[in-house]
Amino acid sequence: MTTPSYRPAPEWETDRWFNAPAPLTLAGLRGRVVLLGAFQMLCPGCVQTLLPQLQQAHALFDPKQVAVVGLHTVFEHHAAMTPVALEAFLHEYRIGFPVGVDRPGGPGGMPLTMARYAMQGTPTLILVDGLGRLRMQRFGHEPDLRLGASIMKLVDEADAAGPLPDAAAGADRTGVCTPGQGCD
Amino acid sequence: MTTPSYRPAPEWETDRWFNAPAPLTLAGLRGRVVLLGAFQMLCPGCVQTLLPQLQQAHALFDPKQVAVVGLHTVFEHHAAMTPVALEAFLHEYRIGFPVGVDRPGGPGGMPLTMARYAMQGTPTLILVDGLGRLRMQRFGHEPDLRLGASIMKLVDEADAAGPLPDAAAGADRTGVCTPGQGCD
Amino acid sequence: MTTPSYRPAPEWETDRWFNAPAPLTLAGLRGRVVLLGAFQMLCPGCVQTLLPQLQQAHALFDPKQVAVVGLHTVFEHHAAMTPVALEAFLHEYRIGFPVGVDRPGGPGGMPLTMARYAMQGTPTLILVDGLGRLRMQRFGHEPDLRLGASIMKLVDEADAAGPLPDAAAGADRTGVCTPGQGCD
Amino acid sequence: MTTPSYRPAPEWETDRWFNAPAPLTLAGLRGRVVLLGAFQMLCPGCVQTLLPQLQQAHALFDPKQVAVVGLHTVFEHHAAMTPVALEAFLHEYRIGFPVGVDRPGGPGGMPLTMARYAMQGTPTLILVDGLGRLRMQRFGHEPDLRLGASIMKLVDEADAAGPLPDAAAGADRTGVCTPGQGCD
Repeated sequence: MTTPSYRPAPEWETDRWFNAPAPLTLAGLRGRVVLLGAFQMLCPGCVQTLLPQLQQAHALFDPKQVAVVGLHTVFEHHAAMTPVALEAFLHEYRIGFPVGVDRPGGPGGMPLTMARYAMQGTPTLILVDGLGRLRMQRFGHEPDLRLGASIMKLVDEADAAGPLPDAAAGADRTGVCTPGQGCD
Repeated sequence: MTTPSYRPAPEWETDRWFNAPAPLTLAGLRGRVVLLGAFQMLCPGCVQTLLPQLQQAHALFDPKQVAVVGLHTVFEHHAAMTPVALEAFLHEYRIGFPVGVDRPGGPGGMPLTMARYAMQGTPTLILVDGLGRLRMQRFGHEPDLRLGASIMKLVDEADAAGPLPDAAAGADRTGVCTPGQGCD
Repeated sequence: MTTPSYRPAPEWETDRWFNAPAPLTLAGLRGRVVLLGAFQMLCPGCVQTLLPQLQQAHALFDPKQVAVVGLHTVFEHHAAMTPVALEAFLHEYRIGFPVGVDRPGGPGGMPLTMARYAMQGTPTLILVDGLGRLRMQRFGHEPDLRLGASIMKLVDEADAAGPLPDAAAGADRTGVCTPGQGCD
Repeated sequence: MTTPSYRPAPEWETDRWFNAPAPLTLAGLRGRVVLLGAFQMLCPGCVQTLLPQLQQAHALFDPKQVAVVGLHTVFEHHAAMTPVALEAFLHEYRIGFPVGVDRPGGPGGMPLTMARYAMQGTPTLILVDGLGRLRMQRFGHEPDLRLGASIMKLVDEADAAGPLPDAAAGADRTGVCTPGQGCD
C-alpha cells in the first residue's frame, strides 16, 4: 500500500522532558503518527506560528493516532535558553504537549538531534509515520490547511475508515449572516 | 470500508456560473470530493475567512481529487447582490474557482439550494464525498487545520496510498532562525 | 501659529448620502478636522483596512472636533457598485459614519470629486484642517499610530489644551500577566 | 494652558540598560514626552502587542520630542528572565530602543519601579509629559490610533505648530485599486 523508499526517522537525543511523566522516545511512539516541532523559545517565528499550530494539532487529533511533540533545539544564546527558562516559557504560553530538550554537543553549537536531522534552523516541522519513517521535514511555516491534510494522510495509511476529525466541535461564527437577523 | 448511513447530498439548483466553461452539477463531480462554500458577496465573514480558505484549498488539492466550488446563496439585499455585482466582486477579489448562483425562489427569500440543504446562513461549508454523500455541513468558520484533515480523509477513502499534498511547495520563512545568521 | 502655504481642500460633489440627515459639505464642516476616506465597496484594501480604521476613528474622536466621512468614489464596475448596493454594503458592514456618493462624470470614468483631488485610486485618506485646508492625502493604508497622531496634531492647532482622548476607556487585556495569577 | 493637577511621575530604579550608551533617568528626559512600556520577556501580550507598538512609535516620532523606553519589570520566573536572557531576547526580536532592567526588591517579588507606579501587571503603557508629569498609565493593550493621538497631544502641549508626523513616508498599498489596473 505504501512504497518502501522512505528512510527511518533518526531517534532523538534528549536531556529533559516537560509535560511528560517519563522521557519519550520515537521508538516508543511507533504505531502513531508523530508531529515533531523543533523550536527555540526566543525564535520569533516559533512563538508566533509553530507553537500555536502544534497546540491546535494537539487539541484536534486523537492522541492514540497522532503524537504532538516539541523539541527545544537550542543552537544560539545557550545561556538564555536554559531548561529553567524553557520551563517558565512553557508555563506562560500554556503549552500542554510534551516538550523535550535536545541534547547539546553537536557540531557548531547545534544540539545532537538537530544535527542528525540536518535541520536548517527553527522552526522545523517533521512528520514521522506509524512505521517510524521520516515523511516530511519542513523549515519555516507550513500552512494549516496543508499540514492538516498531511497529518490525516499518514493517519489514513493505517486505516482510512475512521470518522472525520472532531465532528462535534463548533465553528467560529464571527461575521456570519442569517436570514432575518442580518450579519454579526 | 465506509458505513452506509450517510444521506445523498441534494443536487444544487443554479442559474449562472462564473469561472466555469459550462454549468457544474454535483452529479457530474461524482468520484471527486466536493468542497462547497455557500456565501454572499456582502457577508463579512465570507469575505474575510471563507473565500480565502476556498482559494487556498483550490490551490492546494489536486483538482482530479477535490473540486472546490462556490455557491452564491443570496437571501437578503437581492437588488444589491445581482449576478452583475457578483461578477465584479469575483474579479476584484481574484476568485479563480467555479462559482454558481443559487436559484431564487425558496421559502422566506432563500434560494432553492440553500433551502434544500437547510443552511442556517452564510458562510456554510459543505463536504460531499466521492460517492455523492453529504459528509459535513458547517455554518460559520472552520479552522484550516481541521478542514485540511477532513478533506484528506475523504480523498483517502478512495485511495490512501497517494503522496502527501504539495510536497514540493515551499514554506513561509518569516521569523525563522538559522545557525550563524540569527533570526529574520 | 501655522504657515499659510496649504491650499484649500476642494469642495466635494455628491449625489446621495447615507447615515446623514442631510447632505454634508466640506464648507459646512469648517472648524472641525475632517477625515475623509475615499473607497469603493468592492475594493479589498478598503474593506480590510480603510473602513475599520474610519470606524475606529469615528468611535474615538469627539465629533465636535473631528468629522469622519466616507466617500464612495466608483471608477470601475459602475453597474455593480450602485447606491442600492452601497446601502446594503453599509448595513452589512455596520458602517455608522456619514457616507456620500461621489458624482459620476469625471474623465476616464472617474467621479468628479476623485478627479478634483487627483486621487490615484482607492483607498485614499484625506485630512482637512479646521480652516478647510488640505493637509494630508494618502493613497494606500496609513498605519493607525501615524493617523492618530496626524488627526490630533490638526485638532491641537485649534486648541492643544484639551484632555487625552478617551481617557476613561478600557484597554484590551488579552495575554496580560499579573502577580500571583500568571498570564492569561 | 495645562492644569496643575497631574502628579509627578516617580523616577525609575534600574540595574542595567540595553541599547543605551549610559543609564537613562526620567529626570534626564525632561522636555520630552516619554512613552514607557513595562514588559516581561515571557509575557505573551507584551511580545505580541506592546513591543511591536513601541518599535513602531520609536520609528515614527522624532526622538527629540518623544523618548520610547522599555522597562523589564520581572515579577515572576526570576531565574528565567535574567539580564542575560533579556539581552538575547532583545537581539532576536530586533528591539532597538533603550530598555532598562527594573531593580528587584519590591514587595511580593515585584521590582521597585513597578511597585512605585502600582502597576497591575504587564504590559503597562505609561506616558509622561515634557514637565515630568504622569499623564497616562494603562494596563493591557492600547489601540494604536488612540496611542498615536495621546502621544501627539502631549507633544503639542509644548508646541502645536510642528508638521504632521513622517509626512514623507509611504503608505501600504496592499489591496488598492487604481483606474485602468484594477485591484492588487
